[in-house]
Amino acid sequence: MHIITTVQEMQQIAGELRASGKKVGFVPTMGYLHEGHLTLLRQAKKENDIVMLSIFVNPLQFGPNEDLDRYPRDIERDERLAREVEVDYLFYPSVEEMYPTDRTTNVEVVKRTDVLCGKQRPGHFAGVVTVLMKLFNITMPNRAYFGMKDAQQVAVIEGFVDDYNIPVTIVPVEIVREEDGLARSSRNIYLSERERQEAPHLYKSLCMAKERIVKGERNPKNITSFIKEYIETNTHGVVDYADLYAYPNLTEVEKISGRMIIAIAVKFENARLIDNITLTVE
Amino acid sequence: MHIITTVQEMQQIAGELRASGKKVGFVPTMGYLHEGHLTLLRQAKKENDIVMLSIFVNPLQFGPNEDLDRYPRDIERDERLAREVEVDYLFYPSVEEMYPTDRTTNVEVVKRTDVLCGKQRPGHFAGVVTVLMKLFNITMPNRAYFGMKDAQQVAVIEGFVDDYNIPVTIVPVEIVREEDGLARSSRNIYLSERERQEAPHLYKSLCMAKERIVKGERNPKNITSFIKEYIETNTHGVVDYADLYAYPNLTEVEKISGRMIIAIAVKFENARLIDNITLTVE
Repeated sequence: MHIITTVQEMQQIAGELRASGKKVGFVPTMGYLHEGHLTLLRQAKKENDIVMLSIFVNPLQFGPNEDLDRYPRDIERDERLAREVEVDYLFYPSVEEMYPTDRTTNVEVVKRTDVLCGKQRPGHFAGVVTVLMKLFNITMPNRAYFGMKDAQQVAVIEGFVDDYNIPVTIVPVEIVREEDGLARSSRNIYLSERERQEAPHLYKSLCMAKERIVKGERNPKNITSFIKEYIETNTHGVVDYADLYAYPNLTEVEKISGRMIIAIAVKFENARLIDNITLTVE
Repeated sequence: MHIITTVQEMQQIAGELRASGKKVGFVPTMGYLHEGHLTLLRQAKKENDIVMLSIFVNPLQFGPNEDLDRYPRDIERDERLAREVEVDYLFYPSVEEMYPTDRTTNVEVVKRTDVLCGKQRPGHFAGVVTVLMKLFNITMPNRAYFGMKDAQQVAVIEGFVDDYNIPVTIVPVEIVREEDGLARSSRNIYLSERERQEAPHLYKSLCMAKERIVKGERNPKNITSFIKEYIETNTHGVVDYADLYAYPNLTEVEKISGRMIIAIAVKFENARLIDNITLTVE
């Protein structure tokens, strides 16, 4: 595995790979790799000649009150895991390398952001889109892999890739779960023992909601109030949101139909967990 | 010469060219080609294996009171000229092809725009940057050629290419002039006979200003007031601006030093002409 820390070197290698006709799969991350990331990397390995992984804790996507300094980091462990899944190139730049000068332009995301987690994180997705524009130009991948854990992020990325005709195929990858159904996340380590036991109810509530839709329920409000009630009955968490939207536009619907997402966020004492399922209703 | 009208086909060809290792030179234009464009194309031909030309009158970069409908168009003549300079691919998309859906993101240009022509054209450079982001992703060039006629545009483009690490080398090309010094432009056809005779004084004033700097003048104000006076004495045009800035940052300087631009805009009855020179003062 080659470890590259400068934009110039990474971009030169990427250009040579493109010119050689090799297919490159890219997995951008903020590090502290877990099974979710490894699943993305394994799928990238299967579908491409070369796998690139980036580890960069992007300050632009953290708000003023968010946990940039507290965000967990362990580059040595990440390197070991990356080697295990046979990553070819690890791009690991510093903040100065990625943002060397005052920018002359900004990107703003004007759709798909004022719902779900984006609602409470103004500027977050602008930061995500900015770093991805850079990373896509630096690594020049054919395919880029994103977990559906953050389905809103995938929707925003699909939007900006369309906006600018970015020549990268976005591959959304199913959420990786623990055996009991809890979606894997770097933030799960903050859960208390009791919270960890309750946390699988998030996914359970989504599955039960889906079952109701399969059985004929078409009113979004009935679905979302069922989920809220179920979670607040079965856990000590507080439901931040439980919403149903069209996907990927993330617009409200009056009647459940077409491609849909049901997404929830639940606040526990030291961690806020999110989960979602997408489904298509004919 | 292949004429391509869809994003998908152009992007597929561009991807194959990249994968074949061929060097692509790209000249984005709004058509109605003149000698300035042909110079860019000839230089692109000399420096690359493949030359791509785009013709797209980009509505996003026209303001509400600007001449989008009046902008001159002649695709048959453009095609003929493009063949003469041996363009390999002409990308000629419709507005619907380039902007098919509501965008989910916007780019704003926050530096280098509040001076010179940009001052009076809010949103203009955001439109330029948006279309170029798309065109660069669609044509995937190694080099892109821009005339220094619009030096502010080159400065803005260099800024956004740096911001997003866009893997394209921006090649600024010297202004092409008529024998009498007038910078070539699509808009010159709007000049009256008398105005056409006076127009070379724009360049003359810049050359005389440069001479004063070479001879030791270091006060920007003396230079710009000299130009204003010269043009208003020698033409019937009205000086819109005559400015001297650091280049490419387009910031004011107290003392002439380093890389500088002197830029002017002069309003005649039916056309507003611009011109500039850059110079480096040790």
